[in-house]
Amino acid sequence: MPENVIIDQTLFASDLRVIAVGVPQFTDALRQQSAAVVHLNWQPPADGDPELVEILKRIYSDSRLMTQIDAANQETIARIQSSAPEIIDVSTAREAMGLPDYTISHAGPPIEWERMAGPQRRAIMGAIQFEGWASNHDEAVALVSSGKIQCYPNHFYNAVAPMTGVISPSMPVLVARNKTYGNYAFSTLNEGRGNTLWFGVFDEGTLRRLQWMRDELGPALKATIQHHGPLDVFDIIAQGLQMGDECHARHTACTALLVKRLVPSMLDAGIPGKTVAEIVRFLDANSHFFLNFTMVGVKATMDAAQGVPYSTIATAMSRNGVDFMLRVGGLGNDWVLSPVSQMDEAVYYIGYTVSDAAGDIGDSAIIETCGLGGMAIAAAPTVAPFVGGRLANEIATMKTLSNITLSRHNKFRIATMDMENTPLGIDVRQAVETRIVPFITTGVLHETNPTVGQIGTGVARVPITIFDHALIALARQWKLDIETTTSVKSIRFNPISVSYAS
Amino acid sequence: MPENVIIDQTLFASDLRVIAVGVPQFTDALRQQSAAVVHLNWQPPADGDPELVEILKRIYSDSRLMTQIDAANQETIARIQSSAPEIIDVSTAREAMGLPDYTISHAGPPIEWERMAGPQRRAIMGAIQFEGWASNHDEAVALVSSGKIQCYPNHFYNAVAPMTGVISPSMPVLVARNKTYGNYAFSTLNEGRGNTLWFGVFDEGTLRRLQWMRDELGPALKATIQHHGPLDVFDIIAQGLQMGDECHARHTACTALLVKRLVPSMLDAGIPGKTVAEIVRFLDANSHFFLNFTMVGVKATMDAAQGVPYSTIATAMSRNGVDFMLRVGGLGNDWVLSPVSQMDEAVYYIGYTVSDAAGDIGDSAIIETCGLGGMAIAAAPTVAPFVGGRLANEIATMKTLSNITLSRHNKFRIATMDMENTPLGIDVRQAVETRIVPFITTGVLHETNPTVGQIGTGVARVPITIFDHALIALARQWKLDIETTTSVKSIRFNPISVSYAS
Repeated sequence: MPENVIIDQTLFASDLRVIAVGVPQFTDALRQQSAAVVHLNWQPPADGDPELVEILKRIYSDSRLMTQIDAANQETIARIQSSAPEIIDVSTAREAMGLPDYTISHAGPPIEWERMAGPQRRAIMGAIQFEGWASNHDEAVALVSSGKIQCYPNHFYNAVAPMTGVISPSMPVLVARNKTYGNYAFSTLNEGRGNTLWFGVFDEGTLRRLQWMRDELGPALKATIQHHGPLDVFDIIAQGLQMGDECHARHTACTALLVKRLVPSMLDAGIPGKTVAEIVRFLDANSHFFLNFTMVGVKATMDAAQGVPYSTIATAMSRNGVDFMLRVGGLGNDWVLSPVSQMDEAVYYIGYTVSDAAGDIGDSAIIETCGLGGMAIAAAPTVAPFVGGRLANEIATMKTLSNITLSRHNKFRIATMDMENTPLGIDVRQAVETRIVPFITTGVLHETNPTVGQIGTGVARVPITIFDHALIALARQWKLDIETTTSVKSIRFNPISVSYAS
Repeated sequence: MPENVIIDQTLFASDLRVIAVGVPQFTDALRQQSAAVVHLNWQPPADGDPELVEILKRIYSDSRLMTQIDAANQETIARIQSSAPEIIDVSTAREAMGLPDYTISHAGPPIEWERMAGPQRRAIMGAIQFEGWASNHDEAVALVSSGKIQCYPNHFYNAVAPMTGVISPSMPVLVARNKTYGNYAFSTLNEGRGNTLWFGVFDEGTLRRLQWMRDELGPALKATIQHHGPLDVFDIIAQGLQMGDECHARHTACTALLVKRLVPSMLDAGIPGKTVAEIVRFLDANSHFFLNFTMVGVKATMDAAQGVPYSTIATAMSRNGVDFMLRVGGLGNDWVLSPVSQMDEAVYYIGYTVSDAAGDIGDSAIIETCGLGGMAIAAAPTVAPFVGGRLANEIATMKTLSNITLSRHNKFRIATMDMENTPLGIDVRQAVETRIVPFITTGVLHETNPTVGQIGTGVARVPITIFDHALIALARQWKLDIETTTSVKSIRFNPISVSYAS
């Protein structure tokens, strides 16, 4: 026996009472011998990855750096909490975003045509025909092959859109302004269910709906907002959270509240009754309509919070069905990239499975960075089937997620949790350390079938790799003297500057 | 020591482990001596009242009677669950209910002018002026004193209305038809907050609003319903329950869903845009608007379930601020009476206390007989302050209430309780035995101040006496050979028969 081992001779004199840490097999072995044992659910930080553990140790032991990080994160949170996004106009993508002809923007990171997810490619084909740049599918394919069509991420145009997220110049867009910080953001109008571009389906019905949205709905909403004045997005969200919406997968209440709010202004603005009736019928059948309002409000908020040096807070997450990109407060215009998650935790419609599904897709995951969606899931007991069917599971999910957030949203509260505020400020360090990742409440699209659209709904987990890589990118930027060999993929883009005049 | 007492000599040989039943003092005494003791929260049935205990014993031991009661209660429940109330028209009380000139109906049991609650009296004075039968308050008083005004309970006219519940002939009323059973019910349109008749306030603003409701809102809704077709009340309630409404104190979601549903028909029916805008603004500011839809739907339901001989189920509860009346399935047209509860459990607006409050008032307590309101309180976490501020308390309340109900409503589910159906079928026997009484989520009115209106909101408990007396009335009807000396006050009225032609 080595000399430095000291045996406490009294240790085995009385009955053993054990606290077992980590691997559960030890606990089980003791339980089988009827020993009194408490299992402590512990795992090594960052799964024991030496490189990540070393970075975390260096950060947490560097008091000067920690002071800088804490201050930066506080500033980031303060900007989020003081943001006041308002819808100030509805215009076209051409006018509002400056999207030129033969240019299309889409959800997620930039991607080559060949690697693009099936539904996103189909949506772009549809948008080309909607714009009249091609008169049928084959012409659209030829046009793309000729290299005449330029594709950019929505985020490059300060825009966000759900699922395939395709925006072309003639489409009407919501214009949000962050009243506090003055920045602008844009999003499409939601098409609803069925044969829609956001679900990767394009047919005669899709085209007619897009034309109606361009010719009737968009102009009507423009006149309505002008008459109504700026529409406070977070005011409606705060109410919706008390009415069963978590504001990503479910917007039933917010959409109803929007109708109640806008109809008088719509009529006072002189929109003909027939058109108003048509619009309200459309909204009554589309409980997701407010989703794009939430997204554009959150985009205007998180953009204002982005770019505080030393901030470790995630300020945007975005997917295109193939790649995932993550923006972190302190990484400036660099977005970290990784492959998306497959949708293996979703609830599929009858007849479909994960093998039919496109990968996680849409700009909508920005919602979770602002304390909504997965971060507010207990607000929506009706989506409990996403997490096993019980409200208790939703509450447990939110408690788990609060382990990787630094604060609480000051305006968003959960009635089912006795008005607790939602977790806010996803900290890259804590995600890396705990391996807990944000949880996105989302839909699932068919990868190959051009007529099916949505095939399920449920949760997507953010790939943990993207947080690991973001931490490494931060460590390199901070010039922590650590040898890291991991190759971190990222993309840099400066969003176009917007000077919006409504 | 008496001979028949046998002492188990081993009893005190080992440590005592005690189950203490009933009075908690015994448990406390043992706990103070560090004895292992479990307290069983038990109380004698019917508080040990010999007369009530005897009746319960006779009922539960009479298998023939029990078979009759069970069958009757099953029939009552089946009628409630199969009812399908629809709004088929909006008309005037004169036309729809046959309410003649110089006649006013009101919430609760019949009552003499001198005993009437302050707010109800003020509302009647207001209605008289609204009808033009008097041109000011003094003339209205003189008219009443002259005996020319007839007052009847709303229930006499197959109607229900909230709080003071005053209906006069020119007022527009909702017409509900129970699609399954063909019976009709009526209710007013909700005036909203502030200086309103239902809150016992009458001023220039009240008068103008009533005139607008008569001349604009009522006719517009009539045309809307004609265009839309019958409106399924329970369909909207079932959705509202998933969106934070318990459908008595809170109707925010149901009202928003109603707007979304009706606006297209309103416009298609040719109502001018300006009027529609005015109506939607009114509804946007009045989250209680759907309350009267719920009430009239429940009235049409519970009337169809009423009158099954041997049924022990409460089918209506109604209060006028002074007296409470209870209708029980097997008691035919006899309603049992007792004084109302005082509002000592309510949450008062700043500056007011229970000493300012009128007694429990309104026909709205019929809602609780149909598995809504207090019976569904966990659907509305935002009204948790009524029961201590926590959703857990709301869930506990519903569990307690399910001790006095015989079934669950097949259409009404609570999302916060993992889609559990709401307790339905309040059983007089179980209320008497357990002393658990239904729980009404309601508002509070000022008794004397003519300008204040609502001064609080919260819960009212049904007086237990009324269940005791209902049980005695049943026992007497069933000719159980028990000497009861208790004087049971009741009132008999045959509601007028309605043959409604829209």
